[in-house]
Amino acid sequence: MFKGKVVIVGASNVGSAVLTKLLDFQLASEIALIDLNENKCKGEALDANDATSCIHSLNIRTYYGDYSDCKDADLIIITAGPSIKPGEKPDRLILSKTNCKIMSSVMSEIVKYTKDAIILMITNPLDVATYHVSTQFDYPREKIIGTGTMLETFRLRRIIADRYHIDPKNIHGYVLGEHGNSAFTAWSTVNVAGLGLEHIDEYFHFDDKLDKKAIEQALVNRAYDIINLKGYTNTGIAMVAARFTKSFMYNEHTILPMSAVLEGEYGLSDVALSIPRMICADGIVRSFAPHLPKEELDLLYASAESVKKAIASAKE
Amino acid sequence: MFKGKVVIVGASNVGSAVLTKLLDFQLASEIALIDLNENKCKGEALDANDATSCIHSLNIRTYYGDYSDCKDADLIIITAGPSIKPGEKPDRLILSKTNCKIMSSVMSEIVKYTKDAIILMITNPLDVATYHVSTQFDYPREKIIGTGTMLETFRLRRIIADRYHIDPKNIHGYVLGEHGNSAFTAWSTVNVAGLGLEHIDEYFHFDDKLDKKAIEQALVNRAYDIINLKGYTNTGIAMVAARFTKSFMYNEHTILPMSAVLEGEYGLSDVALSIPRMICADGIVRSFAPHLPKEELDLLYASAESVKKAIASAKE
Amino acid sequence: MFKGKVVIVGASNVGSAVLTKLLDFQLASEIALIDLNENKCKGEALDANDATSCIHSLNIRTYYGDYSDCKDADLIIITAGPSIKPGEKPDRLILSKTNCKIMSSVMSEIVKYTKDAIILMITNPLDVATYHVSTQFDYPREKIIGTGTMLETFRLRRIIADRYHIDPKNIHGYVLGEHGNSAFTAWSTVNVAGLGLEHIDEYFHFDDKLDKKAIEQALVNRAYDIINLKGYTNTGIAMVAARFTKSFMYNEHTILPMSAVLEGEYGLSDVALSIPRMICADGIVRSFAPHLPKEELDLLYASAESVKKAIASAKE
Amino acid sequence: MFKGKVVIVGASNVGSAVLTKLLDFQLASEIALIDLNENKCKGEALDANDATSCIHSLNIRTYYGDYSDCKDADLIIITAGPSIKPGEKPDRLILSKTNCKIMSSVMSEIVKYTKDAIILMITNPLDVATYHVSTQFDYPREKIIGTGTMLETFRLRRIIADRYHIDPKNIHGYVLGEHGNSAFTAWSTVNVAGLGLEHIDEYFHFDDKLDKKAIEQALVNRAYDIINLKGYTNTGIAMVAARFTKSFMYNEHTILPMSAVLEGEYGLSDVALSIPRMICADGIVRSFAPHLPKEELDLLYASAESVKKAIASAKE
Repeated sequence: MFKGKVVIVGASNVGSAVLTKLLDFQLASEIALIDLNENKCKGEALDANDATSCIHSLNIRTYYGDYSDCKDADLIIITAGPSIKPGEKPDRLILSKTNCKIMSSVMSEIVKYTKDAIILMITNPLDVATYHVSTQFDYPREKIIGTGTMLETFRLRRIIADRYHIDPKNIHGYVLGEHGNSAFTAWSTVNVAGLGLEHIDEYFHFDDKLDKKAIEQALVNRAYDIINLKGYTNTGIAMVAARFTKSFMYNEHTILPMSAVLEGEYGLSDVALSIPRMICADGIVRSFAPHLPKEELDLLYASAESVKKAIASAKE
Repeated sequence: MFKGKVVIVGASNVGSAVLTKLLDFQLASEIALIDLNENKCKGEALDANDATSCIHSLNIRTYYGDYSDCKDADLIIITAGPSIKPGEKPDRLILSKTNCKIMSSVMSEIVKYTKDAIILMITNPLDVATYHVSTQFDYPREKIIGTGTMLETFRLRRIIADRYHIDPKNIHGYVLGEHGNSAFTAWSTVNVAGLGLEHIDEYFHFDDKLDKKAIEQALVNRAYDIINLKGYTNTGIAMVAARFTKSFMYNEHTILPMSAVLEGEYGLSDVALSIPRMICADGIVRSFAPHLPKEELDLLYASAESVKKAIASAKE
Repeated sequence: MFKGKVVIVGASNVGSAVLTKLLDFQLASEIALIDLNENKCKGEALDANDATSCIHSLNIRTYYGDYSDCKDADLIIITAGPSIKPGEKPDRLILSKTNCKIMSSVMSEIVKYTKDAIILMITNPLDVATYHVSTQFDYPREKIIGTGTMLETFRLRRIIADRYHIDPKNIHGYVLGEHGNSAFTAWSTVNVAGLGLEHIDEYFHFDDKLDKKAIEQALVNRAYDIINLKGYTNTGIAMVAARFTKSFMYNEHTILPMSAVLEGEYGLSDVALSIPRMICADGIVRSFAPHLPKEELDLLYASAESVKKAIASAKE
Repeated sequence: MFKGKVVIVGASNVGSAVLTKLLDFQLASEIALIDLNENKCKGEALDANDATSCIHSLNIRTYYGDYSDCKDADLIIITAGPSIKPGEKPDRLILSKTNCKIMSSVMSEIVKYTKDAIILMITNPLDVATYHVSTQFDYPREKIIGTGTMLETFRLRRIIADRYHIDPKNIHGYVLGEHGNSAFTAWSTVNVAGLGLEHIDEYFHFDDKLDKKAIEQALVNRAYDIINLKGYTNTGIAMVAARFTKSFMYNEHTILPMSAVLEGEYGLSDVALSIPRMICADGIVRSFAPHLPKEELDLLYASAESVKKAIASAKE
């Protein structure tokens, strides 16, 4: 029998935005919400139920659940834990200790019920949390995946697309490394509409050349801009979760820049980072360590170092 | 040339949820957000832009706008103004005065730029606001439409569907009258899956009969439950806006229970209420005053009375 | 692990239209086509693969398969067998013998590999084929479902909607009985937009009253009109299959007028007919025998008689 | 007022498949079908109307129309004219004379009613037909666009994706030139998942290197394979039309490889060919002549020559 059961752990700004995307894109037949704030879950479920009454929606069952709902879940999406607040020190790593404790408590519950479900990590600092969950629990590692630099990659596409006033679906390539400040644009992978980067400004009759530094800065600023402007980010990350879920649920074998514990790629291990990974119904089936030019490799190693420090400090 | 430009006035919980629905269901090619809180608009637009970078999205342009964007808009959705807060006196009518003032200020701007766009009212108290906007400004009345009891109707479907554990798309019929406490279920229009109501419990082998009073009570409680549980309502009402927008944008000629100023239906005028109305690309093309049994008519008149009082008190 | 595998048996006009709908609505992650005409299957699969390369499609795997693909299928859709041709005697029952033989051959293969998949019957004469498959093979009966009068029901909605120039989603109620000439409109279940039928023409300011006989005649003519005009019917029936698949795949518990062997409903058995049935992930969970007025009951019995004769003649 | 009116000229295999895609993806509010075969149009419209009665469809109006429907159309899609039949000499150019005559007759009617609608050409030989329509009629050239090598590009993505068993949405780059035998893969634009082509087989641990010649051959064969296997091609090209329509209707500014009369790009004119072009609500806003290596330039010029000959022979 078919089933597409998703458990969302954490029902605040991000969790409820993920819920909306799963319902709007019809990516589950059943969704359980878990949060220490039982009221928030129940309220979100009621409101979602009102929405799915609409004639153009599917009758997807959404409800306040508990960890026993993980037993037959296909996918568990973890958004629990506090986020960075507007005006706070702009470093996701400060959340490390708090959220690793929360992840331990969440995972201790999940493993009671399943080792079969794919786990999508969204909680920040993303790579620290992904590493923690992957290494502290006896859970199949290929089934634990962090949203990672998919969000930065979406942002890069939009920033470049805005410059040339084209569809961001025409922008290809990746931001890799840490989800956060040390993420770096792998310019060697970036391409605008198959036209390459070298002559791109000529094609668009632009006098000034694409300023990579400015774009990298815009990318770093973007998360904080959104947090400072609206108080939190949720729409973009929710779409990342939806994109992953499509690839997983439909066994698409899509290559996406996502986080998991490295297994020797680039000589690195004992750290979680985003590199291109192929996603299918089994989780990660293959990870890629594309040849990068030295300056990008340096950024990758720096990013790994940054995450390792955060991992270490979270353990203290 | 094709265009599907929507202006959303008010970018808080409801406005941003409406934005998400329009993007997810691809119901516009361009969306301008207007709010006194410019930062919130800009933050929501940036976050939405990140999301629409996703390969499965359309490149719908979302941005912080101003009232001059109304000039070539097809649809203006008004969500501005404060809402009921958790724990507040459970009566939407207390917001009347404040929100009528806000509506005056919003409409004064809109009419500078257009009398062509359809205006969808979401601000509460919905019927008071719809009446105010329709009567205080020289704007074509068939183009001003309040979401009205569509939300209550979605809720009724879900509540009945939950009882019988069936798809709410199988529940037909309307809640009519005021959007708020005096809304009433027009049971004479309600049908479960074409099986009628008379024998419905027999068909489902239920010992107890459908308790209409309990369902009416659940319906009244639902809005306050959600507000008290999650702090506000937005998912359900956003889907209402999406359903209306589909019917309008695709010229569907769907009959939906929506609010507008009555023009003699049931002998009533000088009040806005929800009755079944046919929606197409021109707005409301036809309104219906179905024959109702006396007890429902009484409720309709009571509801009209309640809204009239609120209108009067808002004018004081 | 999630999976949504569909096998389509028969890849001609109907089968290939069903394939398109499943892909367009993203209702499977994998689709196998089976047909004696291997070339047609391969050609349809190649063409579909070209289409799913599009950036807005999901990477749904479509391929020429064989019956061993039924082993882990969630849903098997049977469209095999010849159809009525333009100008032929307008009675689906003449196909009985031929198609029952084909059904026997198809089912003999299927049961080698599964008794778990839901089987959706589309081959005509639908009720004869559904009966034959349900009774001649040791396969769980609640898992064998014929599209039945869903198509006539869609047509009824459209015909009435066209009269009043409204959205057919506003028309409720069923055509029941045989899929074919003896199908009958259960007017006692029909409702236009919750407004009932009694005053409906008054509401629309029509001088002439809804002519039920004319509508029934239009309904009977419709299949033959389409066959005579375009040579076959496939778009409408493919949407029926998609609607069923949504309800099944998402466990929607929708009530739809579909065919299965009667189990004493209306005192009838040993015949397959369409009555309202609740569809979920397990197939049919509940069937309904709504109270019908005498004239509709008479039509139901006549329809049962007609199918019984065809079943008998197919056995000769 | 919003409107999304499409006229489809030609309602046979391709035209009816395009109709299905537009309805399934909700890309119009109104669709008129025009064909000398009035019956086929009427039959397809009736069948489509049955389908759009379904609760999950929009009430999109589809009907048999005539050229006067072009008056307020946003988009006119021309699929009229005979196609290559299975077993025929595998050269689309032989259809040139016949189909240019048909195009003249179609365009003579269209220009009576509009010069505003975008015209999407699908009739083969595509580039000859596009050239003919663009040069023989006083119609804005940026509004006449041929589907061109978008179909070959979809096919290339699928062929490469199948080799590496990845999602074709991860394959970027273009097939350019003539839609037909002289189309060429612009390998300098091709990229697999941002990983480049140079090391791609190493990343996938393949012993054999990507055989570009074999892929080019598979690409050439594909159209004839489908025609020989199923008798015609329609699913893939219909998705091409849908992709274009999305980009146009939503003003996406997507760069797609499509055909139009060259205006000096690569020193070429007086010929229609596919090069990357940016599509928005106004049609083609910008065309690109990316730097190509010599071997690809040679193929481009050969392709231009091939189309020019066909254009010349069609004029004889």
